[in-house]
Amino acid sequence: MSTPAAQPENTMEAIVSLAKRRGFVFQSSEIYGGLNGFFDYGPLGVELKKNIRDCWWNDMVRRRDDVVGIETSIIMHPKVWEASGHVAGFSDPLVDCKVSKNRYRADQLFWSPVVVDGNVVGYVSALESEKTAEELQAAAESLKRKKAIQGTLAPVVAKDFTEASAEQVSLIPSPATGNPDLTPPRSFNMMFQTNVGAMTDASSVAYLRPETAQGMFVDFKNVLDSNRVKLPFGIAQIGKSFRNEITPRNFIFRSREFEQMEMEYFIHEDADWDKCHKEWIEWCRQWLLSIGLPESHLSLYAHPKEKLAFYSRGTVDIMFKYPFGVQELWGIAARGSYDLTQHANASGKPQEVFDEASKNKFVPHVIEPAVGVDRIFLAVLAAGYAEEDVTDEKGNVEKRTVLRLSPRIAPVKVAILPLLKNKELLTNRAKALYTKLKRNYAVQYDDGGAIGKRYRRQDEAGTPWCVTIDFDTIEKPGDTFTLRERDSMKQTRVTETELFALLAEQVY
Amino acid sequence: MSTPAAQPENTMEAIVSLAKRRGFVFQSSEIYGGLNGFFDYGPLGVELKKNIRDCWWNDMVRRRDDVVGIETSIIMHPKVWEASGHVAGFSDPLVDCKVSKNRYRADQLFWSPVVVDGNVVGYVSALESEKTAEELQAAAESLKRKKAIQGTLAPVVAKDFTEASAEQVSLIPSPATGNPDLTPPRSFNMMFQTNVGAMTDASSVAYLRPETAQGMFVDFKNVLDSNRVKLPFGIAQIGKSFRNEITPRNFIFRSREFEQMEMEYFIHEDADWDKCHKEWIEWCRQWLLSIGLPESHLSLYAHPKEKLAFYSRGTVDIMFKYPFGVQELWGIAARGSYDLTQHANASGKPQEVFDEASKNKFVPHVIEPAVGVDRIFLAVLAAGYAEEDVTDEKGNVEKRTVLRLSPRIAPVKVAILPLLKNKELLTNRAKALYTKLKRNYAVQYDDGGAIGKRYRRQDEAGTPWCVTIDFDTIEKPGDTFTLRERDSMKQTRVTETELFALLAEQVY
Repeated sequence: MSTPAAQPENTMEAIVSLAKRRGFVFQSSEIYGGLNGFFDYGPLGVELKKNIRDCWWNDMVRRRDDVVGIETSIIMHPKVWEASGHVAGFSDPLVDCKVSKNRYRADQLFWSPVVVDGNVVGYVSALESEKTAEELQAAAESLKRKKAIQGTLAPVVAKDFTEASAEQVSLIPSPATGNPDLTPPRSFNMMFQTNVGAMTDASSVAYLRPETAQGMFVDFKNVLDSNRVKLPFGIAQIGKSFRNEITPRNFIFRSREFEQMEMEYFIHEDADWDKCHKEWIEWCRQWLLSIGLPESHLSLYAHPKEKLAFYSRGTVDIMFKYPFGVQELWGIAARGSYDLTQHANASGKPQEVFDEASKNKFVPHVIEPAVGVDRIFLAVLAAGYAEEDVTDEKGNVEKRTVLRLSPRIAPVKVAILPLLKNKELLTNRAKALYTKLKRNYAVQYDDGGAIGKRYRRQDEAGTPWCVTIDFDTIEKPGDTFTLRERDSMKQTRVTETELFALLAEQVY
Repeated sequence: MSTPAAQPENTMEAIVSLAKRRGFVFQSSEIYGGLNGFFDYGPLGVELKKNIRDCWWNDMVRRRDDVVGIETSIIMHPKVWEASGHVAGFSDPLVDCKVSKNRYRADQLFWSPVVVDGNVVGYVSALESEKTAEELQAAAESLKRKKAIQGTLAPVVAKDFTEASAEQVSLIPSPATGNPDLTPPRSFNMMFQTNVGAMTDASSVAYLRPETAQGMFVDFKNVLDSNRVKLPFGIAQIGKSFRNEITPRNFIFRSREFEQMEMEYFIHEDADWDKCHKEWIEWCRQWLLSIGLPESHLSLYAHPKEKLAFYSRGTVDIMFKYPFGVQELWGIAARGSYDLTQHANASGKPQEVFDEASKNKFVPHVIEPAVGVDRIFLAVLAAGYAEEDVTDEKGNVEKRTVLRLSPRIAPVKVAILPLLKNKELLTNRAKALYTKLKRNYAVQYDDGGAIGKRYRRQDEAGTPWCVTIDFDTIEKPGDTFTLRERDSMKQTRVTETELFALLAEQVY
């Protein structure tokens, strides 16, 4: 029997700690002090990540008749990023603190005038967090006290630094120094730059792609010409992207090197894009449920019309309730024919298809579902993490940490546990089963320590099932094992055939 | 019946053409004129590439008890590359032609003095190719003729440009201009450089990794501490690497962005490294055979002792007979404890393990099998490509292009072909089979055109089996289909159960 224990005060800390302890995620180059915004995936993490990718690929590409896959290079011709608008516009507003040399994203740096009896008596600032408003209020009160000003303090009104006037910029204190040491915001391009070839000059500049999507647009014609595809159809890609974030944060949520799963679904210019858009939003939502994310953590956010780019028909984000707040997980954008048209103009190569019905050529429109592997990874860890009080048969209460990962994505599907380590009858049967399973599934053989301890170890790794080879297996007829389910901790007896059938049904 | 047809004169050209026509490989950013040394993988290519990766991962990591996987970031802390020696030494000798601005790798630029009756009368040069010696000889003869020199021409002796003296450098003609316009060789670091963070100065310099291997060394301790692993054990990784090659060439064989599959196998300092080294060479060779590379195309090359780095115990390359010559496919290096020791020294973090027997700590030694996905990809295309004359029942001879890819890695495992497109009884049965297969396998449904034409289409894509749903399927008892095997073109009748059993056995 298990009951939820008092959950950790800081879920993120608990997750980061588990991630390191069990080998899900490490800081990159940790022995050299790490590199801000870069992460490594350990032995369990890499399996989880691969499973997320494979589930998406199988569902999105292999099991659909209307989507094909590609893999384009991370470094593309620099003209791609001129045409796409990234060279000119893929930037964040950057603020420097002249004294501390700290750098902030202006839209994550909040400030407020301190108003007493209607007069502005100073300014306060705070970085974006769950508690920005409280921090600003406290700072305002503290300022009033320090300056010994009498009167009524108006509630603070938080604005971000991009909304500050030139005069305000010169008065708002830096969060690092408390003095007005901030520069006006300037735009900072987030693409990592490098040089290709032996020359290091403007002619050789190239970029690490900030998204995989442009690969699908640039290769559109090649895919069309080499495959028997007809509209509507999609091109999907999984791969690394890079963004030189000013302030990487929230663990793997916003990092500088990350992995995307994007798909461009090309439709007729006269197609009902709104219907198609809605269908993809629902497909993505269902997919997230299929890998075990709880419906309660998901919500939809439609970008307000006035904030959309001029070419955009609409964007809806599937939001996820992370421990640090509700954040974007999967963006589904209706982008019209903007991207193909841009590349047609910039390259001089038409990006049209021929319409059999009207005998006209047209540039297809596109619906783009784009999601980050690392964000899904963090979502399944966050939703799956639990600490519980477990009462055993003798009434002893013990704490267990459990990762409730769907069998589809769990790093290890089954742990094979011989009840005793040095009973050959048990270990031989266990090893035979292990070897047979291993051909098709990620399984683990564990004979170290008490059985309860081994269960805990697997609980923490997210393994859905443990199979124990015990004396009933070898002494009683039927060749059955104890199958122990991770979440309910219920134990049943199954045969090898039943175990394979269970796996075939649940792991796909 | 089929017989080998006259094979194409230029196999590489035929492969590159097929790769583009059928969507295996495209030039990156082709609509912008391409980017030298970068490639994209199309719908069939990405499936082939993924299958190569998955086979390796399953065999190397999931099915072994002594190897775990990781995925480390492409951008790591720059100190990693100082410690590994890449900042100082990962360079190629570069030669400029001052007039044409062409650049050459000095070790790929060959030259010879032209010697007549014992006197040096001039110099000739040629780029490395299958025909370098012939070209030099022809150039020498031409020079002798042009200068109208009488006497006996000595045979040319090809040396590469790194072996030229300063005087010779000033006399050897540039291959581009025919005049002595070449600079002395200088060393050119092949790591792509970028800047992380908002500063663009020396403090923010970072590199795109030129190999994945360092990730395993840098994370060695984290893996050791988070996993129940004991020596000997391996850490494996698949991922992109980048090298700013001076002269990318031979299609995807030597590109600037490529994908590696590397494994570091850590052993006791007193272990029999030579035995372990040999075992891994054989494992790698067997693995290549398991994905269908013919034994006749494989050979071993042991690096001569005098050319090894000081720390190296030995390196053996598995060579493959590519259309452009026998080249390195898989390097298996015995690297001693060099890498872990370097990182221990540079980071100040000991990289030792505790020996239960001797109660001493020691730095493990390592065996490193390192292979490129793209090189395997090209090898299976090259070995699998054939043009054949096929004689049908009526005695008509037709040409077919066939890709003999192993079922393990073929992009499409089975094509489902209803004999007729508009006979519902046929198409319903075909679609039912297709849907059932699609849950577990990459399959294709094709109802377009004559059955022979559909076979050809699948032959060229490397699909091992075609299943035709014909009138016997629906009219005769047993619900059997025609199974047509790609290489032999033999047709047999199978049931659905037999088809699934065949796939379960051959696709793993």
